[in-house]
Amino acid sequence: MQVVIIGSGNTATVLGGMIRQAGHEIVQVVSRTAEHASRLAAELQCPYAEHWADTRRDAGLYLVALADTAFGALGQELSLPGRLVVHTAGAVAKTALLTVSEHSGVMYPLQSLRKEVRPYPEVPLLVDANREEDLLRITDFARTISRQVQPADDVTRLKLHLAAVMVNNFTNHLYALADDFCRREKIDFSLLLPLIRETAERISYFPPADMQTGPAVRGDQVTIRMHQQLIDKYKDIKELYDIFTHQLEHGYPQKPNN
Amino acid sequence: MQVVIIGSGNTATVLGGMIRQAGHEIVQVVSRTAEHASRLAAELQCPYAEHWADTRRDAGLYLVALADTAFGALGQELSLPGRLVVHTAGAVAKTALLTVSEHSGVMYPLQSLRKEVRPYPEVPLLVDANREEDLLRITDFARTISRQVQPADDVTRLKLHLAAVMVNNFTNHLYALADDFCRREKIDFSLLLPLIRETAERISYFPPADMQTGPAVRGDQVTIRMHQQLIDKYKDIKELYDIFTHQLEHGYPQKPNN
Repeated sequence: MQVVIIGSGNTATVLGGMIRQAGHEIVQVVSRTAEHASRLAAELQCPYAEHWADTRRDAGLYLVALADTAFGALGQELSLPGRLVVHTAGAVAKTALLTVSEHSGVMYPLQSLRKEVRPYPEVPLLVDANREEDLLRITDFARTISRQVQPADDVTRLKLHLAAVMVNNFTNHLYALADDFCRREKIDFSLLLPLIRETAERISYFPPADMQTGPAVRGDQVTIRMHQQLIDKYKDIKELYDIFTHQLEHGYPQKPNN
Repeated sequence: MQVVIIGSGNTATVLGGMIRQAGHEIVQVVSRTAEHASRLAAELQCPYAEHWADTRRDAGLYLVALADTAFGALGQELSLPGRLVVHTAGAVAKTALLTVSEHSGVMYPLQSLRKEVRPYPEVPLLVDANREEDLLRITDFARTISRQVQPADDVTRLKLHLAAVMVNNFTNHLYALADDFCRREKIDFSLLLPLIRETAERISYFPPADMQTGPAVRGDQVTIRMHQQLIDKYKDIKELYDIFTHQLEHGYPQKPNN
């Protein structure tokens, strides 16, 4: 399949790379950020354009990986009648690109994509389309780049996007706060990596609520107070510590021992 | 080494199993919870006692894995003069067992230990002692069951314990809330597992702050408002969503694109 990538951020870069790795040909990168466009085009070994109007008209698939706020402008400026066009957004309706093409839909990666990361992670793809025959075409294409492809309507996709924000963005923020705390307290954050991996791994086999441990779920007020004294000057950590502790003290019906 | 395990919860069970697997002999389990004591003794193939006073006096090492609140009582009821005794608590002073034995110290597992989980995870051990020669003996023993053994004083251990609570207890609570949300909304939580694994894996190679993605760090208010509408009836999620979003909007000096 000949593919045009519209966008040049993390999603465009990682999905572009995965599409190319799957044996498709990226024929153009289109991005209004010239520097990013040229970087990605070099990586994908293809030409690039800086104006949406210069998009090639003859590709088999157009992958639109733009900020959610750019969809309105794209729909006004670009028309690709008859062409298969998919966007990659979790919270944008499947109808958003109908002014670009009547054959439009969604291929949403349920993964946190950062252009620095290699090898590419496993990326479940949630697909949708405005016409049934296009859903089949998008599904077939998605299957060439991922083992996990599922149809999901707008609401289901938005719900999974929300859950993804919780388990990725929020979790990563906890990692970042802990990393910052360790750096400032001169302790070695890397000692926590086995714990972080174990926490993520074991929920493939056990429900996370059953795996909870720690002072809050044990009702261990002495330890909680010692922790609170340590973080008095860390405003963000303190705010989260108090809320998590409160929720954990009340949240699980059965308190695990130890 | 002949080892007595005092306690029968998650820490006693997992460390007891790891110690036995390393080739040491568990000669007794002592726990005031008879049912748990007999279960763990069966697992470790050794006798058990229900009263601290019935603890054998002739073992080479005593591993005290009790709730933090039980240390005071143990110190009054059990005396093991001349014996090497270690506790496993993150937030209990190294002096806590001096009334049990002058040769006492700490072997703290920086890991979330649940008795259900096999194989045993990688468990960094933080060691400390009241006498220098005991620190060497505890370190030598710890090295037989873990590749990562480091000395850490009371304050360092408490700080790492706090960081562990953040990256494990709080993260696992986010997983549990997302799991509950998916269950109630009839969507498939297991679709999120590749994302959860990737989030945990990549911070071995990149600082977590540099890996942040998502609507909050992008300043995508439209998506944030759509999420907030979805969680109106999920009180705990809503409370955390608003605080994380606020912190992420202000927390990172450089906002990653896309």
